[in-house]
Amino acid sequence: MNAFTDRFLAAADDKGAPVCVGLDPVYERLPASLQQRAADAGARVHAIHSFCQGVLEAVADHVPAVKFQAACFERYRAPGFAVLFELIQQARELGLIVILDAKRGDIGTSSAHYAVGLLADPQGPDALTVNAYLGADGLEPFTDLAAVEGKGLFALVRTSNPGGDAIQGLTLTDGRTVGEAVADVVADLGKRDTYIGDRGYSLLGAVVGATKPADAKSLRDRMPEQLFLVPGFGAQGGTADDVRACFKPDRTGAIVTASRSVLYAYEKSDVADWQTAIATAAGDLNQQIADILK
Amino acid sequence: MNAFTDRFLAAADDKGAPVCVGLDPVYERLPASLQQRAADAGARVHAIHSFCQGVLEAVADHVPAVKFQAACFERYRAPGFAVLFELIQQARELGLIVILDAKRGDIGTSSAHYAVGLLADPQGPDALTVNAYLGADGLEPFTDLAAVEGKGLFALVRTSNPGGDAIQGLTLTDGRTVGEAVADVVADLGKRDTYIGDRGYSLLGAVVGATKPADAKSLRDRMPEQLFLVPGFGAQGGTADDVRACFKPDRTGAIVTASRSVLYAYEKSDVADWQTAIATAAGDLNQQIADILK
Repeated sequence: MNAFTDRFLAAADDKGAPVCVGLDPVYERLPASLQQRAADAGARVHAIHSFCQGVLEAVADHVPAVKFQAACFERYRAPGFAVLFELIQQARELGLIVILDAKRGDIGTSSAHYAVGLLADPQGPDALTVNAYLGADGLEPFTDLAAVEGKGLFALVRTSNPGGDAIQGLTLTDGRTVGEAVADVVADLGKRDTYIGDRGYSLLGAVVGATKPADAKSLRDRMPEQLFLVPGFGAQGGTADDVRACFKPDRTGAIVTASRSVLYAYEKSDVADWQTAIATAAGDLNQQIADILK
Repeated sequence: MNAFTDRFLAAADDKGAPVCVGLDPVYERLPASLQQRAADAGARVHAIHSFCQGVLEAVADHVPAVKFQAACFERYRAPGFAVLFELIQQARELGLIVILDAKRGDIGTSSAHYAVGLLADPQGPDALTVNAYLGADGLEPFTDLAAVEGKGLFALVRTSNPGGDAIQGLTLTDGRTVGEAVADVVADLGKRDTYIGDRGYSLLGAVVGATKPADAKSLRDRMPEQLFLVPGFGAQGGTADDVRACFKPDRTGAIVTASRSVLYAYEKSDVADWQTAIATAAGDLNQQIADILK
């Protein structure tokens, strides 16, 4: 079985750019044709299911990967969870690499349960986002199982939201920021031989927001073997230069993810068909990032 | 509607001590009578459901609160989630305060979805654990909804596992540790008037491990309005002195939680009936903490 990082890099080469469309579906923003008045929770989950099926079909030819936001499905509890895993399977059948953005993390014994639930299924997600605040022993059950299953992980290092600065941006007595200290924990845990794929990347990657370009440069140096998952391009304000700082000179090393700007492209489009508007936006995202990396 | 903190403190007065039994059910450790050979996932979820029903009945007279570990249920995905919420409802019908230990946390738009899914249901959990690494704007959707719904939150400040030190124990240039900086974010967000209950505690509490007594004292001073959720007593090695540091001089301010030492009490008991062994262990936990606080 190929390592997750090798699978992703091959898919990005194939599709032309290392991009990812985020599926963060919110009932109130679905195309009008999919909404009903006074829909109950079951009808909302059904509409979200239909919408995401259409999104996956629309983007599959244009991008190598998709990212599901677990919160949008967990909002509907068990029925939402069931739909999430059906969609993950569909995405994989369409040839997409699937990242589950669940930001899980706990002490080791509990992380091991999350790891089994979310990484052990061959038809489940290719990769998972995790929270590193509990340190390496909270991450190891994830990395150990990912190594066995050929899956990947992205630990939160520097998030794209404004409030992250109040913790991640603080400076330690040794000169590092808190985000850099977390980066060092990630780089250190991730460098085990069995975690490194053929193209030199570790199964343990990092989330680094596109809205923090100054930090991205330092984090790129500290984590040479980490693939960066880079949210914040587009709707959250990240620019081309912000994105460039997350890549290495060889133009690999990051996955640029855009969610709302692609997912709700029909809100700002003249195209009548929402699937076509989303497909066009996914193609544009791919082209934009390909151009940035030229 | 009473605030979560007031409900918990009243229940602790009623039951004699501010304790909580953690439900972290693992199939392989269930009583032999509940296990079958070669059980598939459905049979395992069913056995865990039966076991937890028995645990809730056994502990309801002895402790004010229970805490469900979400990972043990999410391991089984949608069916696990369905059982988790059935058990939460049962626990509430038995008069128990219910904490869901899910350690969720994301940027604000996503945290809002988790908040709706986990805090908006009147029959759902009374309180939820959350991860504060993304800062105040990642927590606010939780605190805002909790205020409306009379629910509570516990943000991870200082965790009980060894690996937490590598991040939470680092020292900042201003002299604070990272854990103390997170504590300050929690105290600051939690002090809004609408978040404070009749007995002076904020709906936003903190997780502070019983295995870090030196830190607990400083954190107690920094977070005067926070209820501490204190794991690590018992199986993880926390002692009576460790626990005392989490309380205020008036003997309120913390919830001591024990999981494996109560849940699997039948493994080390001569009592034939597993429910009786668990009930006895829950009563002992209550008495131990009542004695510590005398």
